[in-house]
Amino acid sequence: MLDNGCVRMPRIRVSKVTGNVYQIRVDDVETRFFEGIWEIPEGVTYNAYLVDTGEKRILIDTVKSRYALEFLEALRGILDPRDIDAIIVQHSEPDHSGAFPIIYEAAGKPKVYAHPIAKSIIESEYGVRLEKYEAVRDDTVVDVGDGKLVMALVPWLHWPDTIITFYPEEGLLFTCDVFGVYGVLPHIDDAGLSSSEWALYERYMRKYFANIVGAYRDWVVKNLEKLEAKNWNFSIIAPGHGLVIRKRIGEVLEAYRAWGSRRLNPRKATIIYSTMYGAVEKAALYAAERLAETGFEVHIYGSNDEKGIALGDVLGDAIDSRILVLGVPVYDGNIHPITRLLVDLLCEKVAAGQVTSIISSYGWGPVAKRIVAEKLEKCGFRVAGVIEARGALPANDVDKLIENMIAAK
Amino acid sequence: MLDNGCVRMPRIRVSKVTGNVYQIRVDDVETRFFEGIWEIPEGVTYNAYLVDTGEKRILIDTVKSRYALEFLEALRGILDPRDIDAIIVQHSEPDHSGAFPIIYEAAGKPKVYAHPIAKSIIESEYGVRLEKYEAVRDDTVVDVGDGKLVMALVPWLHWPDTIITFYPEEGLLFTCDVFGVYGVLPHIDDAGLSSSEWALYERYMRKYFANIVGAYRDWVVKNLEKLEAKNWNFSIIAPGHGLVIRKRIGEVLEAYRAWGSRRLNPRKATIIYSTMYGAVEKAALYAAERLAETGFEVHIYGSNDEKGIALGDVLGDAIDSRILVLGVPVYDGNIHPITRLLVDLLCEKVAAGQVTSIISSYGWGPVAKRIVAEKLEKCGFRVAGVIEARGALPANDVDKLIENMIAAK
Repeated sequence: MLDNGCVRMPRIRVSKVTGNVYQIRVDDVETRFFEGIWEIPEGVTYNAYLVDTGEKRILIDTVKSRYALEFLEALRGILDPRDIDAIIVQHSEPDHSGAFPIIYEAAGKPKVYAHPIAKSIIESEYGVRLEKYEAVRDDTVVDVGDGKLVMALVPWLHWPDTIITFYPEEGLLFTCDVFGVYGVLPHIDDAGLSSSEWALYERYMRKYFANIVGAYRDWVVKNLEKLEAKNWNFSIIAPGHGLVIRKRIGEVLEAYRAWGSRRLNPRKATIIYSTMYGAVEKAALYAAERLAETGFEVHIYGSNDEKGIALGDVLGDAIDSRILVLGVPVYDGNIHPITRLLVDLLCEKVAAGQVTSIISSYGWGPVAKRIVAEKLEKCGFRVAGVIEARGALPANDVDKLIENMIAAK
Repeated sequence: MLDNGCVRMPRIRVSKVTGNVYQIRVDDVETRFFEGIWEIPEGVTYNAYLVDTGEKRILIDTVKSRYALEFLEALRGILDPRDIDAIIVQHSEPDHSGAFPIIYEAAGKPKVYAHPIAKSIIESEYGVRLEKYEAVRDDTVVDVGDGKLVMALVPWLHWPDTIITFYPEEGLLFTCDVFGVYGVLPHIDDAGLSSSEWALYERYMRKYFANIVGAYRDWVVKNLEKLEAKNWNFSIIAPGHGLVIRKRIGEVLEAYRAWGSRRLNPRKATIIYSTMYGAVEKAALYAAERLAETGFEVHIYGSNDEKGIALGDVLGDAIDSRILVLGVPVYDGNIHPITRLLVDLLCEKVAAGQVTSIISSYGWGPVAKRIVAEKLEKCGFRVAGVIEARGALPANDVDKLIENMIAAK
């Protein structure tokens, strides 16, 4: 029982991915803010994997610390943890390494494979010493008896320590946060997903990509090229979050290629606004209607005093929208603090030459053009127009703005 | 019935302040974010006033637009709105002017007294024309038959249009947002408050002050001097938010003097942190214990992936704390976006020479000193020390930090 009288019910599922590989997955529907900022009502899973060939038993990653004991119990359902021969830490972020200290102890301090940065972080953060340690480099090999695991460094996806692991005998690629995703779906893999479920999955994947990997898009492109050059023949992706991908390997790779190279969806528009008196809201809704009539897929996010803005979702839709409309409230002679945060995040995570307009209604005086337009232009958006007015924003002006955005080359 | 199946129950109360003056108060427990950013689980009231001498009927301010119809109904319980002779708009912010257009119409477009900026905002935002309008200046007088109302401009408390109104015959000062406060208390005035209730009220008042007025503290001092020079002999303060103040006029004025002039509480410490692995949290809690042992009143705010940081409350406690400890998480090689927002707000609203320390635990590399310490120092905090470490923060270092802060002149 927790303090609030609720019972905590983590769901751990163990399933077979291939003959020699188990997945141990935690379904986390408790975390409200991933990374302390991204709202995830859809939840998130943490996936660890156990390669057990009978001869060798290798654990790949663990889970968040609060699920450590349940994770250990699930592991015990498969084997005696002391039989684990080695642990591969593909990435030292706490959602995958938090349970490490407990599992490491329970397993009798086996050999650990990790990037030197991951070693240093784990030792200093968790106060453990990795007694038998091998620094992972490109093509580091772990013998698993009837085969081998081969590793590759994929730096900055999304930490400097990130590695992925290939299991050629089973055609399996373990990717940790790469191809990661939010959401807790009832499925284990993508084989049984309907097309609408897949659309939702892709949406969660794009949101995760924008939030977590967005700042490192150049590295996505570089690492995909590196992966292709390896010619690893894999038919299953086993990520650290979400479903095992069996059917849509091509789609997943293509999505990463598109988002990494800043490709935009030419028929998609995202509108983000906040309103004080309602003037900006009225203009934003009007713009949404006009864009929808013209055949755009329109996503609209509004915030006010009853609901905040879901920053994670906003970024997920902004990253591939050709058209962006930003409704900017004025506050204390500046732009609203939350809008400042939003503009910072747009710049850092998703700027990709989106054709962008700014609409702003002010009481004392205009500030949106000076502050927001300049900043967005500098960081990689293409500002196509700004409407600023005291009070209502004329529909005519919004019409012209939309025409300009659609016509922009 | 609302969409979510809940019934909206605004509470409007009408009460007599003096023989000729009614208060019409809305208790808003629905707004989650005041100004779209400050969390207010304690709610907020909107207070309008009606001066009715039998001869003249003057309405001072209205309420938020969503309560306009209920407000009109309450008004109808006192008089026929068409008998209203004039409306004074002390401040055009929507929480006091939102219901204006409906009331203005229902009252048959009476004369309006307001600052020229308020006139311009109301006309452009609400699309109404003030047909009979008088621009308020210092000492503008409104005749109420058996007496008069006298007005004074108090610019930048907290908008350029803000005015206050004195009713000498009743010893009443109407102050709109000045001396405003969050919270919905069951009382109508402060006469029956216990000392612990008053302490809570003062806390809500300080939070409101920091959030709403903090950026204009120099104007608080100027306007208080202006008010004193007027020698208005008032015995009741009738604010736009909160309780009517009858008993503690001196305390309220003194609080504004203290906060406006950046006076700090020498025995108060506020600790604000966010944590990824727990290292910063451990050090923050340790610092809190040490400071409490030394006799400090300690306030501590922590955020993680299950709860955000209540920015409004943080500012309310930081504004008069002599000691401030900031636990800074590192994110994407920068400080966490929410911490960036927090540092911006601390600088803009509450910087007052607080003796400040920064504690930061990093994985890849240190950034807190370079980014946060510099910014805080520049904007008016006195940075007494920075601890940065990979992993755990040594208790010895925290001890030294606290000694330095306490010893700082």
